[in-house]
This record gives sequence, structure tokens and C-alpha cells, in this order.
Amino acid sequence: MGEPAGIGGELSLRAWQARKDLKLPPFLVIDDPDRLDALGRSLDLNVPVVPIEAAASASDAFERGLPVLPLDAAVKAEPGRPSTATAGAVLEAIRLATKLTLNGDAAAMVTNPIHKKVLLDAGFAHPGHTEFLAELCGCPGMSVMMLATPGLRTVPVTVHQPLAEVPATLTSALIVETARTAARGLQQQFGIARPRLAVAGLNPHAGEDGKLGAEDGLVIAPAVASLQAEGIDAFGPLAADSLFHPAARRGYDAALCMYHDQALIPVKTLDFEHGVNVTLGLPIVRTSPDHGTALDIAGKGHASPVSLLAAITLAGTLAANKQAGGTEETAVYDHV
Amino acid sequence: MGEPAGIGGELSLRAWQARKDLKLPPFLVIDDPDRLDALGRSLDLNVPVVPIEAAASASDAFERGLPVLPLDAAVKAEPGRPSTATAGAVLEAIRLATKLTLNGDAAAMVTNPIHKKVLLDAGFAHPGHTEFLAELCGCPGMSVMMLATPGLRTVPVTVHQPLAEVPATLTSALIVETARTAARGLQQQFGIARPRLAVAGLNPHAGEDGKLGAEDGLVIAPAVASLQAEGIDAFGPLAADSLFHPAARRGYDAALCMYHDQALIPVKTLDFEHGVNVTLGLPIVRTSPDHGTALDIAGKGHASPVSLLAAITLAGTLAANKQAGGTEETAVYDHV
Repeated sequence: MGEPAGIGGELSLRAWQARKDLKLPPFLVIDDPDRLDALGRSLDLNVPVVPIEAAASASDAFERGLPVLPLDAAVKAEPGRPSTATAGAVLEAIRLATKLTLNGDAAAMVTNPIHKKVLLDAGFAHPGHTEFLAELCGCPGMSVMMLATPGLRTVPVTVHQPLAEVPATLTSALIVETARTAARGLQQQFGIARPRLAVAGLNPHAGEDGKLGAEDGLVIAPAVASLQAEGIDAFGPLAADSLFHPAARRGYDAALCMYHDQALIPVKTLDFEHGVNVTLGLPIVRTSPDHGTALDIAGKGHASPVSLLAAITLAGTLAANKQAGGTEETAVYDHV
Repeated sequence: MGEPAGIGGELSLRAWQARKDLKLPPFLVIDDPDRLDALGRSLDLNVPVVPIEAAASASDAFERGLPVLPLDAAVKAEPGRPSTATAGAVLEAIRLATKLTLNGDAAAMVTNPIHKKVLLDAGFAHPGHTEFLAELCGCPGMSVMMLATPGLRTVPVTVHQPLAEVPATLTSALIVETARTAARGLQQQFGIARPRLAVAGLNPHAGEDGKLGAEDGLVIAPAVASLQAEGIDAFGPLAADSLFHPAARRGYDAALCMYHDQALIPVKTLDFEHGVNVTLGLPIVRTSPDHGTALDIAGKGHASPVSLLAAITLAGTLAANKQAGGTEETAVYDHV
């Protein structure tokens, strides 16, 4: 569901409409069926909403309409105006989706965007969606965010932090741990037997032998050496500005980036709409669209489902890879 | 000339070969004619080198061959091995080019890459090429670097600094001064009457109302307000990761970036080869290719002149705009 005052509901409805053209894997939505039905009618989307009682019945219902597994209570939301009144339902949907995926009733989970402030105001005690999932899965602190778009995958080592705090936060241990989780995720979910990890430098020209900053040599290079010593195909630190053109991208399976914008600028510059956020390090497959709740356009019928469609497609591919033991190639994804 | 042990000489020869296909404006090279002639022969480039005695004769010579204005002495350089022995000649070439451009014998100057370490070892006392030019032009401290590629121009407010020093170096005054110089350059050299400047945030999501860093609100926003108050069409701070996709780029003429990689990642990701470095704030037009001396491939015949060709083309366009009083459109550049 995600934040019900955002564009998530509209995206779910539009995703079902696109299921045939894009050969989407069958999916169910955890939400209030009446709410989605009313939203679809108000936007003239012509999507039959099919309330279901258990995840097992979703595949059968999928061809007839959008299968919706209800929450405990009705969800009343006003587009564009998130409220603490629905915070409990937002969290309930995430808990239920995690449970269904953990126990195998679903192959993967895809999360629509949440509005963090409302959750925090209602007492939510996690920095974000991903940390909440990590706790629900029983593996706090181990998850890693990957941004994936056709032709480029990036993994930020530090994420939602002021830039001034990045240099002090970066440690060789953090880089190694992030790279390990990324490499394991690329093996298990992306079906890449021996993932190649390009490691970006922190400073201009990766520090230019220390002249433009010390961290590249003192923190990043030892992490790369340590990863290589344990058999991970990591290399760097490399000048970040020369890491993302087509010839450079052919040389690696993911780029390990030192901070948020270093990872997100290239992904969103190359492909603003198809970016998918993948959480690696969880025992489940989880993807999400790479955008927010878009409160300003919620309920107006202008929301583009492109990133959610990519997130659903990629979730299906990653789940298939995972079930196949990580050996299947990610061909579907590369042609989204 | 640039560093004679680098790829500059080969690039100059190849640029002359490409003059007709790309309709390049006539140019002369300041270098040792015998050196270029020998280099061209060793690489089978078939470029007649025409020594000239004054810039005025370059246009006549251009159709017959590459006009070369000699330096005081012969330049002996071994490809791939820069030496302090040629540092004086490197600086002499820059001084002479600046003089010819300042006095109007040349409409613009284009600089091949230099090898800074050799110059520093020989006693060069400037942080780089641009600062040296600023002093030669009599306007130290005022010049601004712009990276230009078809469809995107970025201006870094801080440039060759460790990332850890960027937050403390950024001041509202520095941002305002850089933006003013950029706006003036866009008017005078790019022929844009009222340049639109998108100002990037420093922190993830431009600080997200201070939650992810204070500088966006405390330093950048006041600079933008101050620029607007003096009539410059600046806006921001904007989330840097969403600033460089095609729809976003249509909304501005240049993006003011807070640090090196924020400016260079999008330019080099979108177009690794055609990037041109433009120095704004000088009384002359100066461009340079956006790459280094490439010592590893010097003298081998593999160097790509694409960035130098773009730099020469853009220099011609900017010079024409400047002579026309900044009113001519930059149509030629947009079709490089």
C-alpha cells in the first residue's frame, strides 16, 4: 500500500492495467479494497478490484482483476494529506507483506513509498523503511540499498547523511561489509556468479595520490585490498566522475559509491523513471520504486507507474533467480 | 602546445585533419614546428606543418597545412616522459597564446592539457592552468570553470579540494560570486540574454528541510535569494540527484554545483568524450579539452581528438558571440 494519501494506490491500479503488455508476474496488493475500488472509479481506470482472503488465491484472481488482501480496518485517506490516523495501517501492510514473503506465500515484496514524517509522528522508531524491514526479518543492521536501472547498479555505502559527516562515517569495515552484502546479493538474486564491484573514490580524481584528500588511500584502498584477499572481485578506488559512461559501466556489475548523490546522480541522470531500489542483505527479495509519495499529484491521475512497473518486474526476476539458487541470468531485467 | 610529452601534439595534428568535416574555425598551434612535423610523420598522419612568423598569417596558411607559430627554442620531448627541461616552453606557449588573444590577434585560446607536476617541480607557483591565465589576464581570483557538453553545462563552486573540506569552504559569498561570473559568461559568451541558473544542494535531497544537513538552508538558500535580489534568474537549492535528467535540464542554462564530482559526474556520464572545459570570468575566450595529458598512450597514435575538436568548435562560437556583443545564439555549439 505505502502511504494511502500518496500516489501508491493509483500506481497499483495502473500496474495491473499494464500486466499484459509488460508480462508482469502476478501480484497482489495489501490495501483496503473499497478504497482502491473508489480510487479507480474516480480516475476512470476501469480496474476490477478483487478482494481476496489469502495470498494463495491471488494468482487465480489476477486475471479477473487486481487481487487485494484487506487490512484489519478500512483506510480513509485524503489524497495529498497524509495523516497519523492511517499510520497504523501503513505499518500493518508492511508487516503483513514481510510475513507473507518470509513464509513463502509471496515470492517477493514490493513497497510503495511511505511518508516518513507521519509514521515518526505516530511513534515509528526506525530511520526508514529498510531498517524496519531488517528488524521484521530479524537481521537489523545488515541491509544494503542498491539502485538499479538497465545498464547501471550502484550501492551507496553511506546513505541519508549530511555530506559533512560522510568522510568521518566511512570506515574500511563499513565499506567491506557493504561490499560483501552487495556481492552476495548480486550472486543470490541477480544470478551473477562472480560479481565485479567497482569502488568509487571519495575525493576528486579519487584523491590524486593523496593530494586531493587522504580517505581514498587510507580508508578505501585497504578495504578493496581486504575484499580482494577474501576472493571478492572488487577494484578501486576509481575517480567517480569517469565511472559511469557506457564503456566504464561494461567493466563492473555494481559500483560501490561513498555517498548518496555519488550513487544517485548517475542512476537518475541516465534513467530518471526506471530506477528501482533493491534491498540486499535481507532473507527476502524486496524492491521499491525510486521515488516518493508525490503528494502534490496524488489523486489527480497523472502519476507515472514506470518505476513501480520496473520494481515489480525486477522483483519477479530476482525471486526466480533466488529460487533457482542464484544461477539464472537476469535477462528479463536487462530488457525492462 | 600543452605538455609536449603528452597527447597534445597528436591531437593538434588530428584536429587539422578534421577541419573540413567539422567546419572548424581556422586555428594556429603554438609549438615547435619541427617537433610536430616529426610526430606527424612518425604517426603517418600526413599533415603538412606550415611554420608561420605571426598570428596574422595563420588564416592564409590554414588551408595549406597546420600553421605553427614557433617558440623561442626547439622542444625536445619523449612521449610519456614529461621533463622539467620543457617546462619553460610549456609556460611560454601559454603566455604567448594569452597575449595573442588579449591583443586580438587571436579570437580565442584553446589549451592542450599540461602536466602540473613537471611545472611545479620547475618552480611554477600557481595551483593550475586557470589561475595562471587569470594572472596573465590581470584578473586573479575571478575565474570560474564551466564544464560544457551538448545539453548540459555545469559550474562547480568548489573544485580541486578534498570532499571533507567542501562544507566549510562553501560560503554564500563564494556561491554568489561564482554564480555572477557564470551568469555574465553565459550572457557574453553563450549569447543567453537572461541565463537560468539551477543551484544544486550540498546534501542528499538538498538537506530535506535541514534533516539531512544544514548548509542547504543556511548557506545556499541565502545565496540564491541574494542572486535573485540582484536580478539573476537563479533558483534552488535543488536535490542534485534529480537535476540532470533530460526534463530537468531543459529548465536551466547551467547548473551551479557545490563540488567537483557533483558537477563532473553528470557531464561525463552523459557524454564522456565531448566535454569541454570553459573558463569564464577572463577577458578572453578560453576553452580546453576535458581530459589530461594521457601519458600512457602518448606517441602511439591512439589518442582521440574528440574533446579538443569540441573545444575548438566551442571556442569559435563563443568568440563570435562575444564579438557580436553576446547576442548571437550558440546554435553551432548545440550541434557539435
